[in-house]
Amino acid sequence: MTDDRVLAALRAFVAERDWAQFHTAPNLAKSVSIEAAELLECFQWSDEADEARVREELADVLTYCLLLADRIGADPAQLVLDKLETTKQKYPVDLAKGSMIKYDRR
Amino acid sequence: MTDDRVLAALRAFVAERDWAQFHTAPNLAKSVSIEAAELLECFQWSDEADEARVREELADVLTYCLLLADRIGADPAQLVLDKLETTKQKYPVDLAKGSMIKYDRR
Amino acid sequence: MTDDRVLAALRAFVAERDWAQFHTAPNLAKSVSIEAAELLECFQWSDEADEARVREELADVLTYCLLLADRIGADPAQLVLDKLETTKQKYPVDLAKGSMIKYDRR
Amino acid sequence: MTDDRVLAALRAFVAERDWAQFHTAPNLAKSVSIEAAELLECFQWSDEADEARVREELADVLTYCLLLADRIGADPAQLVLDKLETTKQKYPVDLAKGSMIKYDRR
Repeated sequence: MTDDRVLAALRAFVAERDWAQFHTAPNLAKSVSIEAAELLECFQWSDEADEARVREELADVLTYCLLLADRIGADPAQLVLDKLETTKQKYPVDLAKGSMIKYDRR
Repeated sequence: MTDDRVLAALRAFVAERDWAQFHTAPNLAKSVSIEAAELLECFQWSDEADEARVREELADVLTYCLLLADRIGADPAQLVLDKLETTKQKYPVDLAKGSMIKYDRR
Repeated sequence: MTDDRVLAALRAFVAERDWAQFHTAPNLAKSVSIEAAELLECFQWSDEADEARVREELADVLTYCLLLADRIGADPAQLVLDKLETTKQKYPVDLAKGSMIKYDRR
Repeated sequence: MTDDRVLAALRAFVAERDWAQFHTAPNLAKSVSIEAAELLECFQWSDEADEARVREELADVLTYCLLLADRIGADPAQLVLDKLETTKQKYPVDLAKGSMIKYDRR
């Protein structure tokens, strides 16, 4: 399954309902945060979470991420790969192995 | 570009640094929220945002979403498509067109 | 120390810098979320957090909450007490003791 | 109305329900983020929000902030005033007036 199939489905869903008018970049950014907190809520009081609920909330976060990527004309996979290159520099293997400490943390 | 290529790159990055130990589902859920807020911060005081910064922060949210999907053994694209089916029921075109009102909102 | 002293200090700080123009309710709501995630970041990879950092981030969340309360003409303490009355109904002691399950959860 | 009255009411509410066991610092930090997103949701698609809903969600954020402050033995008002001193240094009036640009932004 490729991103193309998912993006096409999302675009059709939005177009059918005439919802693109609400999908400004700021509104989509807010939506990503709102859904991210619903995902976090699965783990609010416990490290164990209902799997179906996690899948559903994660789907919502991903959905808004894909809509925002489309809005700004970016390819989600490329965004991740580009950022990964930056992160590799920030956390070289020899310094970062086994540790989460940020070396550039102020 | 497919999800497979991105997932392989992320898995290699994590394995090289021995970071899987930190990537529990709860920690990844927290990370999605943390990065979502950094994305939101691009729009904190204005509806106009620096495009490069939005791309970078969106990449971070997507990255943690993909890591969490992998952790729970889910395919990101399938998660989104499955949820889309549910959302179509919740927002039928004839009732939802042009409006964001949730019909099941308490 | 009362809320009056804190609110007066915050209002003076904002007025001196001519920042009220940025403190719209939507911007303040975004700010509360942004700072809440910085607080959450103290616990991103561990349940143990640097105490000074938690105090600082919690201060930021509280600050934006107080600014938003002021913006909408609400008294923070009264907001909390009013909501507590509602929550007492939702979680009667005999049903809620020792459990976090929401009885009205869909 | 002072913080003492509110804190006493919150402590009594928690004690009656034997909920302190869930109110670890990490869980309370997650809760602050979760409620902050519900506040943000009031403004998800519009800059206009239902006032009663904003008051309620803001109350929830404040509630968890006060519970967390209590958990770490901090006085909320003092936290805010202490942080304000730091922020005054970071944004001197002559440099910060009328602008939200962070001078130490990386």
